[in-house]
Amino acid sequence: MELPRIKTNYKEFTCPVKNASAIIGDYWILFILREFLWGKPMQGFNELQRYLSPISSRTLAKKLKYLQAYGIVKKQIISLRPPKVSYSLTKKGISLKKPLQNLADWYK
Amino acid sequence: MELPRIKTNYKEFTCPVKNASAIIGDYWILFILREFLWGKPMQGFNELQRYLSPISSRTLAKKLKYLQAYGIVKKQIISLRPPKVSYSLTKKGISLKKPLQNLADWYK
Repeated sequence: MELPRIKTNYKEFTCPVKNASAIIGDYWILFILREFLWGKPMQGFNELQRYLSPISSRTLAKKLKYLQAYGIVKKQIISLRPPKVSYSLTKKGISLKKPLQNLADWYK
Repeated sequence: MELPRIKTNYKEFTCPVKNASAIIGDYWILFILREFLWGKPMQGFNELQRYLSPISSRTLAKKLKYLQAYGIVKKQIISLRPPKVSYSLTKKGISLKKPLQNLADWYK
């Protein structure tokens, strides 16, 4: 006997995969994550911009703010004089490595 | 000493994660995959449409063709009289389960 299938109400259902890709499925967001996850875990703004060339500083600042708002990236003050900040991934951000790696492996 | 970092040419670089989400990062595509991966592995058109309500038959047909073109879904002729076809995932389609599950787990 076949097990009864649960019918999903797709009018109201929100898919966690869809929600996840709504957050991170963006051109520069994915490249920024890549620089942290497979590049260097802690990076200054200028360093990041250099590696993500040709990104504009305006776009990079916007994307980093966005990632901070979602608790994926954190900003740390390294020194006050001279003023120096550094960006790195939060625990939530680091936990993206596995799903992104799997997705990349699937595509290859 | 720090290891030298490889600079990516982001003007030309195409990200496999981005490519993967360009293929599957679509509202109905994800729901269709979900029905196969976590629902029933083999499904008829009408059955699929019933479970994916309120999807239109036009949209479902279009999405199934798209998934077939990418080698994710395959169509099989079950019987000729009465005519009966069935859809299921290919090996490539089934291998999407792990990355999608991981992405969903990350979002939760």
